[in-house]
Formats: sequence, structure tokens, C-alpha cells
Amino acid sequence: MEIKSISIIVAMQQEANPIISALGLVYSGKISEQLPMLNYEGITNGVNVNLVTNGICPTYGIDLVASQPSILSTYVCVEKRKPSLIINAGTAGGFKKYGANIGDVYLGSPHVCFHDRRINLPGFSEYGMGFYTTYPCEVMAKKMALKTGVVSTGNSLDFSDDDKRVMDTYKGSVKDMEAAAVGWVANLLQIPFIAVKAITDIVDGSTPTKDEFLNNLELASENLAAQLAKIVCFLSTNDLH
Amino acid sequence: MEIKSISIIVAMQQEANPIISALGLVYSGKISEQLPMLNYEGITNGVNVNLVTNGICPTYGIDLVASQPSILSTYVCVEKRKPSLIINAGTAGGFKKYGANIGDVYLGSPHVCFHDRRINLPGFSEYGMGFYTTYPCEVMAKKMALKTGVVSTGNSLDFSDDDKRVMDTYKGSVKDMEAAAVGWVANLLQIPFIAVKAITDIVDGSTPTKDEFLNNLELASENLAAQLAKIVCFLSTNDLH
Repeated sequence: MEIKSISIIVAMQQEANPIISALGLVYSGKISEQLPMLNYEGITNGVNVNLVTNGICPTYGIDLVASQPSILSTYVCVEKRKPSLIINAGTAGGFKKYGANIGDVYLGSPHVCFHDRRINLPGFSEYGMGFYTTYPCEVMAKKMALKTGVVSTGNSLDFSDDDKRVMDTYKGSVKDMEAAAVGWVANLLQIPFIAVKAITDIVDGSTPTKDEFLNNLELASENLAAQLAKIVCFLSTNDLH
Repeated sequence: MEIKSISIIVAMQQEANPIISALGLVYSGKISEQLPMLNYEGITNGVNVNLVTNGICPTYGIDLVASQPSILSTYVCVEKRKPSLIINAGTAGGFKKYGANIGDVYLGSPHVCFHDRRINLPGFSEYGMGFYTTYPCEVMAKKMALKTGVVSTGNSLDFSDDDKRVMDTYKGSVKDMEAAAVGWVANLLQIPFIAVKAITDIVDGSTPTKDEFLNNLELASENLAAQLAKIVCFLSTNDLH
């Protein structure tokens, strides 16, 4: 696959800022006049790169996190840019039982799932979890010494016993709030998709997620940006296979 | 407000069919070539009415229920149709503690919320719940003898203890899987929005949701269609205030 353009979808501005700097992107306005999503653009190694943040909630003044805004960001971004590849980049929780450490950067593989769509009706259970395929990136992960695992998405920062039970069925090893939303739209529109997630907190550790998340957001975002710059560089010069 | 056109967003085809019949709508193709959402059109009492179903999942072959597909249905529908009013119609669970019976039709009021977005970060908790405003419809509810209440949306057919705790904070009295998604997009794009929900199951009753849902889906959908035809008729001849 020849990669001519890459779109990066990021939920929070604080996660996006180091990536924007690392890739030398420039703000180019809202992605669409009526929507809060912001667009940044640039060229890296001959590849057109744009980054879309979910933007700010007009009512509550905070970043539009969770799956619903990411559906819109991804769809409108694809409509406007027709990228060769979509990357969902962001911070996430990791599991010590799967060897995660704070600051690790993971590639989602072989799919991303939802852990908070329990639909116990004939035929609907698997759909609820989704299993949206990521573009094969094991070679890149090995060359760049990045960890890989199933990214599991839910709309809450914390997780319930039900969420945990669902995650365990598919060995969800990175817990975030957007990847499966971006993955669903990417799969639907048949655009290759990668999830890149940096660990802010250890889900199965003893510190509350909220405290770890806020303490490590800057560190994780810096690591995410550094690895993402390398990933974009790798993708511009290598076939993924 | 003069209502020239109404868009109705429905998750499942089985919920939509009686509405399509009752309003005499005609299938007009996919809402967009790349998307699975289907569009039906017609004119009722001089008002242009279209109905969009979320369509069928290309992977699992079932209806695209839950909030994520409804975000896309609503956004693309607004983009294509610029309706005066959006209605999210569908089936839902009711609560006996708030007086619900199987087959009741509710209007969401004064807002619709999410009960499965727990985001315990400064400023994010309220955003998680959303509180998306519905267009004032108390007059219509009274004239048509419909019940009203807060419609509470989650991505699961069942509910966890956490979901229940969140619902109770805002007296969520109708539990569905789409209204808050449609409401968020409608609020964002500043299009008046109404949720109309028919009760298939009693959430705080003793029968499992799954069984009640499947047993009562047809009855509830028929009631929904009958009331929706009256609502469209009412909206075409009356101001809502």
C-alpha cells in the first residue's frame, strides 16, 4: 500500500499539542464550519498529514472525549481528506498483567473493540464488541520496539465489573475511550486504520485512574508524539508488510 | 417555529417499518453511497418527512443499534436534508417506579442523557451525562395524553449498577440506546429535537429485558407508529408552544 496521506484523530487538545509540534503541523481552521473539530496540516517526508482534534464542548468547555464525537471527527475527516490511512492517537490505560508500564506506547492489534456495548440478543453480542480490524502493523511494532495488543474502548474513564468481564473475553490490554469508534468508521469506509496509544495509568494497579491519568498525561503525550513522528516517518518510507 | 420538514432517525428496521407504513413513506435509497443508512421519504400534511434507519451491519448482518451509528445517521441526515426538526423514534425500557406500562409512548423531556459515560475528571462529569435539550413538547404531550420523562441512553441492552446510579441522579425514566446520540448532534447543529419512545420492557420489573424486548417489540413499534403519525400531524398544524 502506498501511503500518500495520513489523517490522525485525537480526542484531547493536550494529547494533540506535542504531536502537532513533533510533526510541524499548522492550524488550518475548523474541519467543518458547524462542528467544533479543529484541523492541523503539514507535510512529513512527502506525505500529507492532517490531525483532527475533537474540539471543545460548547456547553461545558472541555474536550469532546469519548466515542460519539470521535465518530463525527473521523467521518468528516475522511469526507474532506480521503486519507490513505487513519491513525487514532491518544492516551490510555494499560494492564500490569499484560506487562504495561506508564509511558509505554502500544499499537492496537489485531483489532479494537468496545467493552461497554453488552447486547444480549441473537446476533448482536459480537456486533456490540465490534472487533474492528487494524491494519497489520506487527513488522513496524517489532522494528520500533513498540508493544501491541487489543485496544478496548468504553465511554467511561473508569470501568465496571461488566466492562472488565467483556475486556477479558478478548484480552483487551489497552483501555481507551475512542479507538473502537474511529475503527468502526474506518472499517465502514474501508480506510486502513491504526491505533497508537500511550499509557497514562495502570488499570489493574492500586492508584485511582483519575489521579494517575492527570499525573501522567504530559509524559504519555510526549512519548506518544515522539513515537508518532517515527511512525509517520516509517510509513512514508516502508510498506507495512 | 414553522415546521417545513421533519427527519426521523430510527435504529432498527423492525421499529421503522410500521412508521414507514403509517406515514406512507417510500424507500429512496441509501442516505449516502458509502454508508449503510437507508432513507425513506414522503409528504404528510404538507410537511416533508424523511426517515433514516441505521441500516444493517456489513459484518454481522444485524441492525446497527447503539449510539455510534446514530451519530452518523443524524449528522448525514442533517447534512443532506437540513430539517426543521429531528425526531428520534424507537423502543425503550420503562420504569414501574415512574408509572410506565408496556406499550406506553413517551416524549423525552426536558432533556436526554447518557448513563454510561462516567468521566470523573474536573469539568467532565456533566459533559459525560450530556443533558441535551429537547424541544419543549409538554403542550403536545398533554393534548395527546402522552407521558413525558428524561430519556437515558446507554450502549448496552441491559444496565449495570453504575448505569442505574447515574440514571437515578437525573430521574432517567425511559432507558434507550440512541436518544442522547441523536440529541447531541441535534443540539450541536442547533436543530430542534424530540425523542419519542415506546416501552417494550420494564427495567425495574422481574422479567429479563431480553425476553420482554423480543416479546413486545412488535406491539411497542405499532404503538410508536400510531402516535408518531399523530405527532407529525400535530406538528404540521400547531405551534409547539
